Amino acid sequence: MNLNGLVFVTSNLDKLREAEAVLGLKLTHKALDLDEIQSLELEAVVRHKARSARDQVEGPVLVEDTSLEMKGMNGFPGPLIKWLLTSVGPGGISKLADVFGDRRAVVRCMASAFDGAEEYLGLGVVEGSIASEPRGSGGFGWDSVFIPSTGGGLTYAEMEESEKNRISHRRLALEDLRLVLRR
Amino acid sequence: MNLNGLVFVTSNLDKLREAEAVLGLKLTHKALDLDEIQSLELEAVVRHKARSARDQVEGPVLVEDTSLEMKGMNGFPGPLIKWLLTSVGPGGISKLADVFGDRRAVVRCMASAFDGAEEYLGLGVVEGSIASEPRGSGGFGWDSVFIPSTGGGLTYAEMEESEKNRISHRRLALEDLRLVLRR
Repeated sequence: MNLNGLVFVTSNLDKLREAEAVLGLKLTHKALDLDEIQSLELEAVVRHKARSARDQVEGPVLVEDTSLEMKGMNGFPGPLIKWLLTSVGPGGISKLADVFGDRRAVVRCMASAFDGAEEYLGLGVVEGSIASEPRGSGGFGWDSVFIPSTGGGLTYAEMEESEKNRISHRRLALEDLRLVLRR
Repeated sequence: MNLNGLVFVTSNLDKLREAEAVLGLKLTHKALDLDEIQSLELEAVVRHKARSARDQVEGPVLVEDTSLEMKGMNGFPGPLIKWLLTSVGPGGISKLADVFGDRRAVVRCMASAFDGAEEYLGLGVVEGSIASEPRGSGGFGWDSVFIPSTGGGLTYAEMEESEKNRISHRRLALEDLRLVLRR
């Protein structure tokens, strides 16, 4: 199976744009807001989301989800990051890193492809830290407060788009999935 | 329909015990860990949870869910409180109230009863604030950091069980549901 045979199901157009840039191909896209279950386990959320996509879209589908785990909060918010971000913005995430006294964070992205019979998972993990305040205007979501340890001290939002896409959790997850699909 | 004809579906035995004390009756109980969807809207979470219970348990079912909304965080974590509590404990919730500079909080409990044909909802709302550190040894969950505005400055965990059960969000939700069911 090739990634370009999949329908990417997401309501987040930023994720679509980024996935296409990372993969260097145009994806078929369906803008559905899929139910996500409450969990701190990314894989549980992604597998559930994939089932929900399969129920609503015919044929091979691709979904992904992302987790931001703050060390000072014992991994919170994980896959619940979307709701924290909606509520307090990137600046609020910086405040949390302050008050819990540990700026380290791990970002995970998991992509799931379903070919009509079997599910394939790709994982991308990036270690880093939370900036003391939002910096940069690129990217989206919480990019302005995440400093990947391999990015020369810049937040994702301070990087050129091509540089972010070279090292990001989403890049790593989609590359991993591509390898898994080729096996 | 009477509440004692319902099967209360919850994996949380503290909630079961409290519901029985509040209602003054023994409830039939099924310990299932129901899927909950990610949302900041309590009603969306409860309605989904109720459908999930109906899929798994025959006959009339009762479910409930609780939301803790911190004013300083624009309502976060809401129904996601369980995961915040698991990750950082009651003391962590106090820290959040510190750093976001507003201790006010609202607690909501929504109970859903399904009689085989129709769904009935009961809601209980309690305003209050987050204590600067955990206090008291009664109750469960985040009781040690929530000070209801009608509780004389005590946290739920500092109250006699009977006093908490007289004024709590769960009491109000179940009483409301009882009224709705009698209509």
